[in-house]
Amino acid sequence: MFSGAQISLYPMTDDFVGVILGAIGALDPYRSNFRIETDDLSTLIVGPPEQLFPAMRDLFLAASRRGVHCVLAATVSRGCPGEPDDPICTPIAGSSDDRPLESRIAAAVRHVETAPRTGQVVAAQFSLYPLGSGHHMDEIYGCIDFLKRSGVFDRSKNFCTKLCGDAGPVFATLSEAFLRFGAPQGHVALDLKVSANSPSKA
Amino acid sequence: MFSGAQISLYPMTDDFVGVILGAIGALDPYRSNFRIETDDLSTLIVGPPEQLFPAMRDLFLAASRRGVHCVLAATVSRGCPGEPDDPICTPIAGSSDDRPLESRIAAAVRHVETAPRTGQVVAAQFSLYPLGSGHHMDEIYGCIDFLKRSGVFDRSKNFCTKLCGDAGPVFATLSEAFLRFGAPQGHVALDLKVSANSPSKA
Repeated sequence: MFSGAQISLYPMTDDFVGVILGAIGALDPYRSNFRIETDDLSTLIVGPPEQLFPAMRDLFLAASRRGVHCVLAATVSRGCPGEPDDPICTPIAGSSDDRPLESRIAAAVRHVETAPRTGQVVAAQFSLYPLGSGHHMDEIYGCIDFLKRSGVFDRSKNFCTKLCGDAGPVFATLSEAFLRFGAPQGHVALDLKVSANSPSKA
Repeated sequence: MFSGAQISLYPMTDDFVGVILGAIGALDPYRSNFRIETDDLSTLIVGPPEQLFPAMRDLFLAASRRGVHCVLAATVSRGCPGEPDDPICTPIAGSSDDRPLESRIAAAVRHVETAPRTGQVVAAQFSLYPLGSGHHMDEIYGCIDFLKRSGVFDRSKNFCTKLCGDAGPVFATLSEAFLRFGAPQGHVALDLKVSANSPSKA
């Protein structure tokens, strides 16, 4: 199964280049597990599905540390039938999960409860797309049920769900949504924006 | 059918608030056709599907005019079964299209050819998600065929397609991809980033 993300960092400052270059080092601990490519629009990371959100969290925390208003936008995908299988994407801890919806929801809630706190409050909104299945709305509603029990649920919006809280549990919640909903070997995409230090409240 | 978009503008400047507030007026000609709501993460526009991309184009051009590096990110959706039908979303010119794939591709190419030029070069990348259908990859491959004939195709990337060119045909291409691929009354989502004035080439 192929898994990865196209990630963009948007620091709302004249020194956006400096903020981005200063944050990139946060990906160093992940480099041995990822293939990484950058162009003018985004950085591609391809690697184990359960490391994608921890890597994005660390990158975003590094960019937000100076207090500048920053947004991370990402298109995250697993199981796309248009991509070749890649051994680099093998789940490290067997993250694929084919238990019934209720068991997956309970396991996801437990994972979020144990996520380390970071001290950085963020707001996030995302959409989950389980593709190619006739039951995509069942998986979406199951995921929304989990989100409401995650402790970082803010509200449902049109086309997406908004989370708010410490970056640790917020990124853990996003990771659980991505890993545990939609068929285990199916095609799942996730469209994400995370914001820190916004002048219009986080 | 419900249709709309969650739109965010990211101007990479200390004066990001000024750039955003200065650009918002570009939505005025669309206000009578749209419901518009803003929070700290995005602005929701709900309205006729064929006006969503022209509105985003005009907003983005207004923000980019000062030469600042700007990104517009949007989650665009039509036909979501979780949203109530809304008369404000009625297509103005009957944009739903149930012809065979080849006819839809040809019609989309013709529409892009007649799109007005704006003088602003942009780079864009997007993913199209036709949901709840067993044939979602057929529609995606058909859409990619159209994109390659659009005149603004740059390249295929992992998880998305990159376009480059004048904002007029680029936004027209995005609109055609959104309106004509996936089932006419089906659930289609589109995840978009558009960039202007990037120091790392457009």
